[in-house]
Amino acid sequence: MSTSISPLAPASFPKMPPVDGVRFATAAAGIRYPGRTDVLLALLDEGTTVSGVFTRSKCPSAAVDWCRERIKGGRGRALVVNSGNANAFTGKSGRAATKLTAEIAAEAVGCKPADVFLASTGVIGEPLDATKFSGVMGALTADAKPGHWQAAAKAIMTTDTFPKGAAAMVGMNRTAVTVCGIAKGAGMIAPDMGTMLSFIFTDAPVAPAVLRALLREGVEDTFNAVTIDGDTSTSDTLLAFATGAAASRGVAKITRLSDPRLASFRKGFNSVLADLAEQVARDGEGARKLVEITVEGATSKKSARRIAMSIANSPLVKTAIAGEDANWGRVVMAVGKAGEPADRDRLAIWFNGIRVAHKGARDPAYDEAGVSASMKQSEITLKVALGLGTGRDRVLTCDLTKEYVAINGDYRS
Amino acid sequence: MSTSISPLAPASFPKMPPVDGVRFATAAAGIRYPGRTDVLLALLDEGTTVSGVFTRSKCPSAAVDWCRERIKGGRGRALVVNSGNANAFTGKSGRAATKLTAEIAAEAVGCKPADVFLASTGVIGEPLDATKFSGVMGALTADAKPGHWQAAAKAIMTTDTFPKGAAAMVGMNRTAVTVCGIAKGAGMIAPDMGTMLSFIFTDAPVAPAVLRALLREGVEDTFNAVTIDGDTSTSDTLLAFATGAAASRGVAKITRLSDPRLASFRKGFNSVLADLAEQVARDGEGARKLVEITVEGATSKKSARRIAMSIANSPLVKTAIAGEDANWGRVVMAVGKAGEPADRDRLAIWFNGIRVAHKGARDPAYDEAGVSASMKQSEITLKVALGLGTGRDRVLTCDLTKEYVAINGDYRS
Repeated sequence: MSTSISPLAPASFPKMPPVDGVRFATAAAGIRYPGRTDVLLALLDEGTTVSGVFTRSKCPSAAVDWCRERIKGGRGRALVVNSGNANAFTGKSGRAATKLTAEIAAEAVGCKPADVFLASTGVIGEPLDATKFSGVMGALTADAKPGHWQAAAKAIMTTDTFPKGAAAMVGMNRTAVTVCGIAKGAGMIAPDMGTMLSFIFTDAPVAPAVLRALLREGVEDTFNAVTIDGDTSTSDTLLAFATGAAASRGVAKITRLSDPRLASFRKGFNSVLADLAEQVARDGEGARKLVEITVEGATSKKSARRIAMSIANSPLVKTAIAGEDANWGRVVMAVGKAGEPADRDRLAIWFNGIRVAHKGARDPAYDEAGVSASMKQSEITLKVALGLGTGRDRVLTCDLTKEYVAINGDYRS
Repeated sequence: MSTSISPLAPASFPKMPPVDGVRFATAAAGIRYPGRTDVLLALLDEGTTVSGVFTRSKCPSAAVDWCRERIKGGRGRALVVNSGNANAFTGKSGRAATKLTAEIAAEAVGCKPADVFLASTGVIGEPLDATKFSGVMGALTADAKPGHWQAAAKAIMTTDTFPKGAAAMVGMNRTAVTVCGIAKGAGMIAPDMGTMLSFIFTDAPVAPAVLRALLREGVEDTFNAVTIDGDTSTSDTLLAFATGAAASRGVAKITRLSDPRLASFRKGFNSVLADLAEQVARDGEGARKLVEITVEGATSKKSARRIAMSIANSPLVKTAIAGEDANWGRVVMAVGKAGEPADRDRLAIWFNGIRVAHKGARDPAYDEAGVSASMKQSEITLKVALGLGTGRDRVLTCDLTKEYVAINGDYRS
């Protein structure tokens, strides 16, 4: 298992302000990992609204089932996240573990179990011993403090090589509201909210229906536009909490999508989602290169997305990029297999801004040495123009290295 | 680039009888590889019927375009296959090259260009210099002889580590007809070659419509049920030729699908397809383990196929098998992401016949040491029972090793 930090990691964890109405505490409950924190508790002030998007897996984890059921109420008072055990494919004992965890947290926090949200990440198929939470929950509740983003981000890591956080400040009613988020990623990252765990917090007062709309719209071009290996986790969870604490500073509640203040808030909110999603791609297992794939000239945005994902998930494209080869033949292959409208003889392809192919053949002016030199960069852009319509989309991925195989295949040896 | 023979290769090339009405010759035309044969000519007696199935890529090679157009006639007199250049994504010059190749062959053979079928495998995007064929075509036509299967199979290899052939004899009208085939794998060689090619020959007299039906039906559970990495070549081509030479031994022409003789012929024909398809999986790039995935209890065969392919193409499942780990958690993940009906709490999973999970949780009787020991085998079986219906399907794949990444990413270093 890799222990070195991804070469694509940001230089440092970002400065992140506290979000009024949210307090964090972490503990080492010995779920699986020795000598590190593996439980995160977030305490949320009364009145906090919540929304979430979850994995589309037909075999979701017990925690996903729990959250899906409770999210309908739109209110939350606590979030308990553990790493080391996904509580997925654990049958009846998994359901019992979610119930017990929520009860333990509810008692310590002083709320109803239905107001407790849960997420678990780690091994699939091992029973989660929820009694381990009872030993730490009292201290967690007592210790919870504003801020502490980096500690929170660290407690939820699994194979991540760096903690992931992002923040934005948005002006509203002559004051500022804050949007902060943390995420974990690494393997099994694919779209359709097939993305790890991420938790977003804001002190803006946002009604549940508005928060839900913002989140669904926001993930589309951020978390849903990232893929590491095309595999979709059973546990992917993105929750957004709005404490509403900024109301005390004169920020009126946002109850309608037509509220003019939403324009800037949406921008800040989406920037946090986009930043975290990119960090997930930067920490793809074994990643040595961040790859941005743009498809334009498709018959629709949806078609462009499918073609971009076909390229992003192609092992042959990804290994070529690992080998620093601008292998546009494999890009043609991946366009062709997507099943979307494409005309071979109109295709044009660029690597790092250099056109290597156009009109269905190699670009006669194609300077192989120049392109090869550019492939040594740690950030690669790949653009495909289909020449059919105005559909355009962009996805992020990383290369496929021997390190990926080692992380996912060598752990036994 | 790997040069050692796949550990999953058959012990030797099979004994294959000649097929009456087919003669082969090979030559070294210097398309790309020095010091090896790279052109195969098959001469087909007058009256030969032909059918084919091709890549579903939206960006097919020029040879695929050529064959698709000519296959409608249902007749063929010659097949020209070259390795070293795929003549794919070569624009107008690609179309010109197919036309010229067919003209050169037609003149040497004494037939119409429309009766010449073509296949090319090798580099994508490099113009194919078809004039190279004119230097060898006369000698090829003069030298063509029955049999020579191994030489034919070798001439079409690219990254294949062994030549692939299979044969069957079928009793018909008190004599025997022969079905023989050769194939090359879905391997890719430095820097960007890729293609599955297979050619089947029989002396049975089979009308074009019947041959077409046999082929479409036969590929479904053979070539279409094999995946190496989920990537689809621009050039995949499977052609079946029926010379009808057995008519001279009293075998009446098969003109209807209701012909009772088809039952045994279909069996022999499909066994050749299945054998070749399995050899393709055994020669998957970097493969160390052959993996048979069976899904049963699905709502339909189609649904079972989709789930089996989701498992077979999952990098996380494939790396786990490379690591000799019966990681059923990843199998659950792959079932869940397939998008097909599945009930987590009814799932059961077997590795090498040992049940590791049932009713949506780890099998309490699961003997990890026993399963781990069995994972050291070079042939792995993985079975998933969904418990929903009677849909069943089976696909073949191989593991994902560091060698795959090396073959496809390291060729520059």
